[in-house]
This record gives sequence, structure tokens and C-alpha cells, in this order.
Amino acid sequence: MARPNRLREIWQAGDWATNGWLAIPSSYSAELMAHQGWDSLTVDLQHGVVDYQAAVGMLQAISTVPSVVPMARVPWNDPALIMKLLDAGAYAIVCPMINNRREAEAFVAACRYPPLGTRSFGPNRAVLYGGADYAQHANQLVVALAMIETKAGIDNLEEIVDTPGLDGVYVGPSDLSLALGLPPSADPTDKSALEVIARIVAAARKKGKVAGMFTGGPEQAARMAGQGFQLLTIMNDGRLLANAAKAAVATARGAAPKAEKGPKTGY
Amino acid sequence: MARPNRLREIWQAGDWATNGWLAIPSSYSAELMAHQGWDSLTVDLQHGVVDYQAAVGMLQAISTVPSVVPMARVPWNDPALIMKLLDAGAYAIVCPMINNRREAEAFVAACRYPPLGTRSFGPNRAVLYGGADYAQHANQLVVALAMIETKAGIDNLEEIVDTPGLDGVYVGPSDLSLALGLPPSADPTDKSALEVIARIVAAARKKGKVAGMFTGGPEQAARMAGQGFQLLTIMNDGRLLANAAKAAVATARGAAPKAEKGPKTGY
Amino acid sequence: MARPNRLREIWQAGDWATNGWLAIPSSYSAELMAHQGWDSLTVDLQHGVVDYQAAVGMLQAISTVPSVVPMARVPWNDPALIMKLLDAGAYAIVCPMINNRREAEAFVAACRYPPLGTRSFGPNRAVLYGGADYAQHANQLVVALAMIETKAGIDNLEEIVDTPGLDGVYVGPSDLSLALGLPPSADPTDKSALEVIARIVAAARKKGKVAGMFTGGPEQAARMAGQGFQLLTIMNDGRLLANAAKAAVATARGAAPKAEKGPKTGY
Amino acid sequence: MARPNRLREIWQAGDWATNGWLAIPSSYSAELMAHQGWDSLTVDLQHGVVDYQAAVGMLQAISTVPSVVPMARVPWNDPALIMKLLDAGAYAIVCPMINNRREAEAFVAACRYPPLGTRSFGPNRAVLYGGADYAQHANQLVVALAMIETKAGIDNLEEIVDTPGLDGVYVGPSDLSLALGLPPSADPTDKSALEVIARIVAAARKKGKVAGMFTGGPEQAARMAGQGFQLLTIMNDGRLLANAAKAAVATARGAAPKAEKGPKTGY
Amino acid sequence: MARPNRLREIWQAGDWATNGWLAIPSSYSAELMAHQGWDSLTVDLQHGVVDYQAAVGMLQAISTVPSVVPMARVPWNDPALIMKLLDAGAYAIVCPMINNRREAEAFVAACRYPPLGTRSFGPNRAVLYGGADYAQHANQLVVALAMIETKAGIDNLEEIVDTPGLDGVYVGPSDLSLALGLPPSADPTDKSALEVIARIVAAARKKGKVAGMFTGGPEQAARMAGQGFQLLTIMNDGRLLANAAKAAVATARGAAPKAEKGPKTGY
Amino acid sequence: MARPNRLREIWQAGDWATNGWLAIPSSYSAELMAHQGWDSLTVDLQHGVVDYQAAVGMLQAISTVPSVVPMARVPWNDPALIMKLLDAGAYAIVCPMINNRREAEAFVAACRYPPLGTRSFGPNRAVLYGGADYAQHANQLVVALAMIETKAGIDNLEEIVDTPGLDGVYVGPSDLSLALGLPPSADPTDKSALEVIARIVAAARKKGKVAGMFTGGPEQAARMAGQGFQLLTIMNDGRLLANAAKAAVATARGAAPKAEKGPKTGY
Repeated sequence: MARPNRLREIWQAGDWATNGWLAIPSSYSAELMAHQGWDSLTVDLQHGVVDYQAAVGMLQAISTVPSVVPMARVPWNDPALIMKLLDAGAYAIVCPMINNRREAEAFVAACRYPPLGTRSFGPNRAVLYGGADYAQHANQLVVALAMIETKAGIDNLEEIVDTPGLDGVYVGPSDLSLALGLPPSADPTDKSALEVIARIVAAARKKGKVAGMFTGGPEQAARMAGQGFQLLTIMNDGRLLANAAKAAVATARGAAPKAEKGPKTGY
Repeated sequence: MARPNRLREIWQAGDWATNGWLAIPSSYSAELMAHQGWDSLTVDLQHGVVDYQAAVGMLQAISTVPSVVPMARVPWNDPALIMKLLDAGAYAIVCPMINNRREAEAFVAACRYPPLGTRSFGPNRAVLYGGADYAQHANQLVVALAMIETKAGIDNLEEIVDTPGLDGVYVGPSDLSLALGLPPSADPTDKSALEVIARIVAAARKKGKVAGMFTGGPEQAARMAGQGFQLLTIMNDGRLLANAAKAAVATARGAAPKAEKGPKTGY
Repeated sequence: MARPNRLREIWQAGDWATNGWLAIPSSYSAELMAHQGWDSLTVDLQHGVVDYQAAVGMLQAISTVPSVVPMARVPWNDPALIMKLLDAGAYAIVCPMINNRREAEAFVAACRYPPLGTRSFGPNRAVLYGGADYAQHANQLVVALAMIETKAGIDNLEEIVDTPGLDGVYVGPSDLSLALGLPPSADPTDKSALEVIARIVAAARKKGKVAGMFTGGPEQAARMAGQGFQLLTIMNDGRLLANAAKAAVATARGAAPKAEKGPKTGY
Repeated sequence: MARPNRLREIWQAGDWATNGWLAIPSSYSAELMAHQGWDSLTVDLQHGVVDYQAAVGMLQAISTVPSVVPMARVPWNDPALIMKLLDAGAYAIVCPMINNRREAEAFVAACRYPPLGTRSFGPNRAVLYGGADYAQHANQLVVALAMIETKAGIDNLEEIVDTPGLDGVYVGPSDLSLALGLPPSADPTDKSALEVIARIVAAARKKGKVAGMFTGGPEQAARMAGQGFQLLTIMNDGRLLANAAKAAVATARGAAPKAEKGPKTGY
Repeated sequence: MARPNRLREIWQAGDWATNGWLAIPSSYSAELMAHQGWDSLTVDLQHGVVDYQAAVGMLQAISTVPSVVPMARVPWNDPALIMKLLDAGAYAIVCPMINNRREAEAFVAACRYPPLGTRSFGPNRAVLYGGADYAQHANQLVVALAMIETKAGIDNLEEIVDTPGLDGVYVGPSDLSLALGLPPSADPTDKSALEVIARIVAAARKKGKVAGMFTGGPEQAARMAGQGFQLLTIMNDGRLLANAAKAAVATARGAAPKAEKGPKTGY
Repeated sequence: MARPNRLREIWQAGDWATNGWLAIPSSYSAELMAHQGWDSLTVDLQHGVVDYQAAVGMLQAISTVPSVVPMARVPWNDPALIMKLLDAGAYAIVCPMINNRREAEAFVAACRYPPLGTRSFGPNRAVLYGGADYAQHANQLVVALAMIETKAGIDNLEEIVDTPGLDGVYVGPSDLSLALGLPPSADPTDKSALEVIARIVAAARKKGKVAGMFTGGPEQAARMAGQGFQLLTIMNDGRLLANAAKAAVATARGAAPKAEKGPKTGY
């Protein structure tokens, strides 16, 4: 039996998923992240420093921990790369900048084998990860999420959400802010942004679809879970690392006693 | 004029340096770390997932921030790799498991051009980083630090510290703990370990040498600075990332309201 | 004189070519394959775990054996990548999922310098592989093969085959099966699939074009050669390896005498 | 609880293990191999085209299949690389060209934490693969196998086998043949070679140690299992692939009907 | 304050920039080039042997020399890759084969954040290179240059140059020659080509835009600077290296005295 | 028949060989260099930015041009890496810093199969490059050159040159200068250095061995050929590139007419 997509199980249970986000092109940091309790990890090929070859190693690394669902964000609604990442074992694809129904349909088509879509057959790593019968179940296994983050995407929210075969939508708060004429922010506080975000989750739930969102921190993630989002990303690995490093340096400096002047040293 | 080694300036001023530690084999995460306020960054080729080729990219990444001194820890007292990392622009080398004077002298020799040592000439990247006159000044620029972390190393502390051309010593607390029959710990609390650590810093200062140490956190680093250490590492990038990620997941889960059961979803 | 394309010589002689298929992203396995007697080797950037950078190393590896023609399958009808692979010395391009004449013309255009097409000039490696006068002859040297494997492609077979400058067609049996509502199979036995395959080779021969096909094994390849196909792929490197490994394990287990219980061992 | 080493369980049960051998530097081919039924897979850093960085990706790939024990063969009795591979999660190390007791002891020391050895602490990936308590159990988990393949090694067989902490020996038949003045062969038939091989397995069993061997095929592996070997390698991935490819080409050519001359084609 | 784009300063001063061109996928050769006095360096992802991952390392290498402006040429008018390279810190993008106003507008849109364009937000490395306020200034910092090198591009020169937000045009002389029915040449001498080149620079200057050009050597570059071009590329790294190597071999052979026959040597 | 080593043929004919030197870790630049007329190319793993994995790709690239002999310089007299590079198809090894007879013998031993040496059997790529019977002829094919460049090496010149199985010596002029208390120089002019260099070539010829040397330019190479050297390296790829680039920038600037001030431009 093909390996189930745990995200669907979480959502079936009415729960939400914590999603890590990988921008560092390293299978080692990906494997480290896979051990920190995330429900899923998304290899970010759009704004991460990641291309296909790095992504494969990262998907392998994630696969060493069976409980974590491997996802990928593509840089564009590009069927070639979407299909390559599905072949490589991604169990969910996040596609940025979906503007309308036609784009949403093209995205879904790239994720589904005929007759539901146009995905080409050749699941090189997916058959290792998903099992020998992966291909028979792939159309049910793979989760397809369209990002709503452009002006057009917001305007066409309803028709996008309603796309057959689309599993849900995903909010990119920074681009969404820019689209609304606001400064980019992972945690928008402007009323217009909050209203749009609320509309997105409402539209998704109305159609029995999932809504996910990128957030700037765990508190925001929890808040958004409370509003009905079911997939919540908390920063990315690079930001987590940078914040932790900066804090460590500051704490060390702050905690250090007035430096007792050390000895003059030298060669 | 060759680019000075800022570590020497910090130490000349009697101050201590915050040192970041890089185990993730990525020039992107290295560059991220270079922007977080560290005085120096050490590419760890021993217990990091890093080899020479990855190290070169990481040293380049560190070089994009002029204030951060690029260092490397080698996996062994191996002149071939020490020389390759110096050629690649490392301004300081940390060498593990130095057991006695002979090993310390061999380590120093690998770091110095004749007549002070046996370093072979060919500073491919060092001449780009250090400047056209790098080679003339390299023997003064390069910092050589011997790790004291084995039983023999502790026993032979005095003769090691006294090695001509050695700039200082560096404490690996986990290996040192093991050497003392204790469980490995980045922040040892056992009296015997603390006593040895105190002996090391005292021996170094007595000879006008530097003492550095790996620590498990910023408070420990500050504490050790107070005890006279002048180069303090705070965890590594992998540990900082893992801790931050684990905390983020826990915080999000803890902060989330009892999950209002979401809609049943599915394709 | 530019290095000739041996595939054209084989076809001129009325013979067929054995084609190896490379999904493992390694220049070593590619060079190994280049020594096994194939007439041509195709670097698969669609369903292989291969991107451009890996492909370059693999094309170099193939070039160490002058008798083997280097080919590439692109993941999509994307002129950017087609041109990059031609620049890297691919002497033939297989393009998947060609649906109609317009797509076939776009594919051919990407393979030909003006005035025959729109290929941009910059044959970085091709000039090393093909010779100093590569560019003058490139439009004649490069073989362009369109895959017929979608419902639309089958419907528009005649207009595709007839595309000026297209050298032939190539059958992807798994996608073709899916397109016909059948389960994916490298060696379809359903009558409707066999009929379409026969139509494809007939259409190609009628126009003096080549027909190639991916097969699931050497017997099938020979069978298809008997039906007029002139380029026959036999599995890919990954499948050859996996089958051989699985058989070796089974044979060893089957051939082993009932294990004389060995000694209890341990540390 | 730390992940157990399945090889020990197999040997405790008196059974033998089928071992695959990886010379292709690809995490994809490594993952493919991990699904073919091997009990263990050895990343070959000596005669494989593999260095440390490639090995890490391959060890990760092997880890996606819990039943396969990840092993590595080092190119030399070099503690730096042995320790790096153990840190990377190798659960067994094969060390070539062990000539005497002193070298065997040095090898074992590199594999064991103090007080049993001199392994340095920093199990970056091993702690992910082996579990949080990996370090406490590592000295019991890690299998250390010394290759007997030189004249000196054969002469000193008894003292090597008897080395405390050494889990067993491993026969390299080609080097062993060369050492005996015979042409290199994976499956030696010369009486002197067979006699030495028999001596090796007998010496190992007498001391309750394991004997492993590289073989040229599954029948030989089964034969050697019958003679008491408990770890049997069957060729390597490159040889399996090359043999399978060469056979496929020959079969296709042999099976093809006399080529009905195809049409003249050309651009 | 965001790091300014030195190209704009050069152009504001009415000067021209020497531009190096990088086709070798190595961060080491890129860093070497960054020390040779170029005003800017362009990572060539079209006809260079360079993909995204290699480009990131090269952009980092260029960043080690603050005076050199990092640029990239994309292989196609593809917003996904344009945005990824901008995120990676490219301060200028050269886009090939722009045929008309629509394509020029799409290119500019990919380079600009809303409301000026459609660039997606996520400047992973750009914020390290450009500074914390990079995003606020990015629309002013980033230089967008459209290549005029196709027949359609030449015909639609005026409307392309006039595109709002486009900073200038760039001449690819080889493709331009092909477009005019001439053999490809980096330094065209045909009157029709020279006339078109003159038209291009005139059109750019009339609109206050910049004109750049690829040249086959420094004398041509100087000549073109005299004609008003403000960004002049001189060959690429591969060509510079090949020419220098070929000349060195020839000089050595030419300068060698008639070889005094050496001794017979051998093993 | 195994592929012969063309260096031996050149030397048998009493001629000298032009040798290129590769420090840039790229198989593309290596292939470019292979087309510029060199008799041999040396992958420099000591002072080049090259490790084993990069070296393999570069050796493959060199192999695309049958007339160029692939060589490697190792970073140290390390049998593990020497054997790996021989397995990878290097037909000659240059070993740095040979100080005495014992070291020379160890170096030779690593290059020869038993009974002449201790090379381990496993010619993964060498058998592809050299032919199926490579191993039978490898001891005759492989050229072993010891660098004379340390004080001890100069003192022990005679005994080193006389080492059985050593094919010759190779002068590193910069290290040799340092050893003599002179500033490092690729083209030493000091009398003491010139005298030592003359002694080295004389000692080699007297024993029927080859002498090679690294030089700073083609004129020096020709001069040294006139003095009896039979393998002459001319700079390395990085230096050739840097010099050519610097000259191009200077020429362009020098040749440019006083910049007619261009238009003010901007976004």
C-alpha cells in the first residue's frame, strides 16, 4: 500500500499542521529540521537558495523521518519543475502567484496523472518513497496548494478556491501586503490585509478546502490556527538560525562581566 | 598592506571574541551567520558536515563581511589539509587532539612558511583575501590554536602551551570530559573538569597565549570570558537552528487555542 | 571538419541504434555506461534525477568515448534549457509531450540557428566537442525528436511528423498508455496502444523521418526494431541497476546452503 | 533507546548478511540500492568514486530504509575520516590493508570513544540516525572490520583477529591475490588463495569474530556463506550496472531480426 | 542605507564600465576575476556553463570585492529565474532575445516589486548584500538591460528602448549578426551590422538609456566606448583563459631552442 | 592493449612536454584547457582549489582529448589519495615535499601494484580510460615524479633521484626559493637557486630520470627546456586567466578615447 500523506490525516482529524520551511540548500540542515517536531517541511525553491538538485537531497533527508511530510514550493507555475519535484517524492506542492482560475487549473493539471491532469509518468524517487503502487494513488496522495498573494489572485479568490482538484490555498503575507500597497510584512497588522486574509480562509473553508499561511513566528502561527488555518509555516530555517545567532551574541555580550583586560598576546 | 587579523587586534586590546561555529555545509548559511555580529566564524571540518570544497565556499561567504575573521577547525593534525585551508584564506586554524609538544610543533610548522615552519607556498585564495603581500606577512597573520582535550594533552599542557609559534589553546569540553571519565558535556559542571579548564586558561595567560573554548550557550560563554578566555564559541549553527526550530514548534502548539476542528477536506 | 553525428550515419545505413538512458546524476555512472556498447546515451532531465549542471558532467563523460552519441531529454519544450544542452554538446534532443504542429515548430526552432530557427549563439562546449566549425554545421548535426505520448499528440500525429526540420518522433509508452486510458506500461500489450504505436512508426517512415521508442527490455527493443523503429532505448541506468541488484540478492539467498549457524559474536 | 545495529542481530542469530557496495557517488543510486533487499550497504571511499561529502548524502539515502545497515569503507587507516564517517551515521567501518596488531589497534581506537579508544565527540548525524542516546551506546553499536589482504596482514592474521574491540575481518580477494603473487581476482581459484581464505574465516570463528568478504557474484557469495563468512558483498553498483547494460545491448542486438533496412533519413 | 549600485554612479558620471563575463561555473575563478579591475562582472546563465546554484556561489565570490557590481545574464525572459537571481543579490540583469515591447515590459515587471512590477518578495541574499533596507530601494537599485539581437528586436528597437523602467539595452553581436544573415561574430565588420549597432546606441541615448555590448577584445571595447556605449564586456573568462593558454604553449614552443635530445627514460 | 602514456613516448623521443596546471575546480575549464595544445594537464590538489571529487570530473574532461596526458599533483605523500587518483585515471602523479629516500620509496610504493609496491587494487575509472588490461600494465604506465623543494630534499637529492621506480623529479621553484632563504619566486634569479636547479636536472639526467619544473611563463619554460628539463609547466589556469583579464581591462581603458561624457541616466 502506498505511503499515506499524513497531512490529509491531520486535516481529516480537523487538526492543523506545523510546517517548517527550508531555504538553506543542505541535506544536513534539512535532516536536522526533520527531527524538530514539524508535521511537514517545505523545500522552498522560490525564495530559498535551493534548486532542483539540492531539493532532491533535502527530500531524501526529510524521508529519513517517516512522520514528516515532504513538501516543495516551486518558484513558478512551471509544469516541468512541478513534475520533477513530484517525481522526487514531494507529497505536496505550493505554487506561488496564482492569479486566476486558468492558472489554478494549469497548476492542478501538472500535479495529476491523466485523465485528471497532464502529469508525465516517471516517478523515479516517488516510487521509492511512496511505495510500488505510488502511481495508482498519486492523484489522491499529492496535495496542491495555490498561493493567493497578488491583486489578481485576491480578486479571483472564489474561482481559484473552487478549482477542481485544488486542495487549498496558501497565503504569502509579504507579497499579499505588497499587492495591497502596504510594506511587505510576514505578520501584517493593517486592517485591509487582515480582512483579505480572513476572506481567504473563509473562502477555503466554505468549499471544504484547506488554507495555509506563512508566518513570522509561533505566536502568529497559533493565532492563525485559531482563525481556521490548517497549515502554518513558522519563518524559515535561515531566519530561525539568524535570529538565534544574533540573540546568542547579544546575550553573551550582555552577560559578560566588564572584560577584565586580558594579557597582550601575539606571535 | 596585507589585511590584518582582527582577532589579534581584539586580543591586543585585551578583549574577547565571540566565535560562531559552522557545521552546515552551505555558503548561504555561512553568509547568513557572517551578518549576526560574530567576531569570527570557524568552519568546522572535524565534527561539522564539511569537507574542503564546502569549506572554500564558506570561507568566501565569510569574506563578504570584512569584520568577521575566517577560521577553520581541521579534523586532524594533518599538514596537507591545514595548508589547503590556509591557502583558501583561513586566518586561524584550530587543531584538535594535540597530545604533546611534538604534535604541537608539527601543527605550528604546518601553519608557518620557512624558515619558521614547513608550509608550502601557493596561497591561491589567501592572496585574494589577504592582499598581494599576504605571503610576506602570513606567518604573523595566521593564528594557530591547539585543542587541549585528551588525557595526554592535559598532562602535557605546559609543554604544549609553551610551543614557539603557537598562539594559544582551545578547550573542547566534551572530549575533555570524556578524557576525564565523565559523560560528554559542552558545559561541564564536574569539579575535576572545571579545575582542568581553570588550569588551561591559567597556563595560557602565564605564557601570554590565548585560551579559547567551545560552549553550550551564551551565558556559559560570558562566564568563561570572565575567567579569562578570549575566544568563545557558542554552540554551532546546527544546534542554534535545531533549538530554535524545536522551540518554535512547541511555542506554536502551546499558544494555539484548542483547535477548533476544521472542515473535513480532501480531493 | 565538425564531428559527424553517428546517429545520422547509422540511420543513413538503414540500421537502428541502441540507446542507453541516464537517470542517475553522476558523471561516473555515465562514463561506465558509455563503455557498454550503446550507440547513443540520453541524459534524461525529465524523469531522471538530473539537472543542467549534472547533465554537463555526464555529457563530458559520454564524450570520452567517441563512438557514443550524446543526447538529452529535456523536461519540457523550453527553449532556454534546450539551447543550454545544445551548447553543452548534446547532439540530439528528445522533447516530451509535443501536442501539435505549433509546439513541434517551436521545439525545432530552439534547435536551429537562424534563419532556420531561433537558437542563440554561444556553443561553449559544443565547439569543443564538435570542432571549431561546429556552428556552421550545427543545424545539420543536431537531431530533434518529438515525443508522441499525449492524446493531442496522437490526434495530431501527421502534422507533427511533417514539421520541417523535425528529424523524427519518439514514443513514451507509459505516458502514451495513460493518454489512452490504460495503466502506464513500458511494454504495452493492449491492442489500442499497439495500434497507435504502429501508426506512429508508419507515419514517420512515410515522411522519411525516424521513429524511436523507450522500451522495458532488450527483447522488446529488438521486436520494435523489427517494426521499423530506428532508435531503441532499453530501460534506464537506475532500473538496470535495481533489477541486477535485486536478482543478485535473490540468487545469493537462493544459492546459499541452509546457513550453518555461525558463532555468536559481539563486542 | 538508540537504534540497534541490525548486523549484530543477524550475526547473533547465526545468520549471514548480504552486503551491497556503493562506488557511484550519488544519493539517488544509493537510495535505489537501499530498496533491493540488501541487509547492509557499504559506501566505498577507497575504490569507489566517493569522497566524504558524497558519502554523507549516500548515508542519508540509505537511512530512508530502516532495515539496511549503513556501512563505509575508508580509503586508509585514517582516524580523521573514520571519525567523520561515524559522525555521519555509519554503523560499521571496513578498514583496508591492516598489516599487524598495532594498525588494528589504531583502527579500533578510532572507532571507540574513551576510555576504549580515542574517538572524538561530535556525532552530528549519528545522533539523528542513532537516537539521542547514540553516544552512550556507540561503542557497542559500531562494527569495526579489518581487511586482511596484504602479505603482512596474512602473516599476522592471528594477532590482528585477536585485537580487543575488533569485530571481525574482511577479505579483499583481489589485493589478497596480488599479495600472493597471483593476478587480481574477485573470485580466486588458486589453491594458495583458497587456503588463505579458509585460514582467515577459521581464525575469525575461533575467536568469536565475524568474517566478511567481497565477492564477484551471488553464487560465490552463497558458497562463501557456506564456508562460514557472515557478511558477503556482491560486486558493486558500478559493476552490476555495467554488466546489466552490456547484457541488455547484446541481447537486443542478438534478438533483433536482420534489420529490415529503414528509410534514408536526414534533415 | 542600502548599498548603492556603482554602475548607476559610473553612468551618472558619464563614464563607461568595463564588464567581465563569467562562463566557468566556479566561485574561485569568479573571485579571481573580481580582483582584476572590472567595474562589474556578469554571471552568464545563458551561454555560460552556469546554473542557479553555481551562480549563487559566484555572486557571493564577487561580493567579496565591494567595488565590483554583481550582474547576471539569464537564459531566457523567465520571471522565476530572474527573481531568484535578484534574490541572490544580482544588482543588474541582462535578458536575451527581447523581441518587442510586450516582452520588454514583462522583463521589467519581473525586476520590480509592486506596484511597478510583479517581483515576489523574499530577498534572501540580496538583503545580506544590499543591506537591511534593500527591499525599499530595490526598484531603484536593480538595473534591467534588454538584449537587442533578433530581427524582431531590431525592428522594434524604439518601442523596446522606450519601455518604462528599462534601464537600457545590450547588444549581442553574434546573434545580431545571425539575425542579419551574417556569420556570427563578436566584432562584426559588415556594414549592415555596424549600422544597426549605431542605431541601437543612438536610440538608447536619445531616451536617456544606457547601451551595453559584448565585445571580442579590449580594443573593440574601447572603440565602442568611443561610440557611446556605457557597459562593455570583453570576451568571457573561458575565452580569456583559452587564448592565454594557447599563446603560452605557442610561445614556449617557439622560444625553445631546438630540443637537445634528452636522455632515454623509463621505468 | 592498454592506452600508452604519451609522456613516455615524448621522453623516449628525447623531447619535452608542455604541461598545463589546473587550480580552478571545474570540469569545464579543464576541458577548455585540454584543447589548447598542452601535452599534459596536471590537476593540482595541493595549491589548486581542488579536492578529489572535483579532480575526477577534471580527469574525465581531460580524457575527452586523447592526446593530453592526465596528471595530478597530490597535496601530500598520502597513499590513500595517490591511489584514489590513480584509480580515477591519472597517468602521472607529482608528489610535493619529498625529503629523503624513505619518503621517495613510500611515494613510489603507493603508485605500484605488488610486488613492486603496495597500491591497492580497484581501478574504477582507470580501467575505462586505460583499457581492460590497464591493471597488467599500470606499473609501467604510471609516471611518478617527486618534488625537490625542501632543504632536506635538496640535501638528499642523489638518494631521492636514485629511488627504484621513481621516474623523475619536479622542481617547485617557490618552495625551493623559500628553502634557500630567498623570497618565493616562480622564476628565481638568485645564483644559489639557479645552481640548485642545475644540480637537480643534472642529477636526474645522470640517472636516466626525467626532470620537470613549474615556471612563471613560456619564455622561462623554453629556457628550462634548453637546460634539459623534459616537463615544463607554465603558470596555472587561474594565473593565466587573471593576467589575461587584468591586461584586457588595462588595454580597454588605455585604448579608450577620453570618455565623451555620456548622458545622465537613471530609472
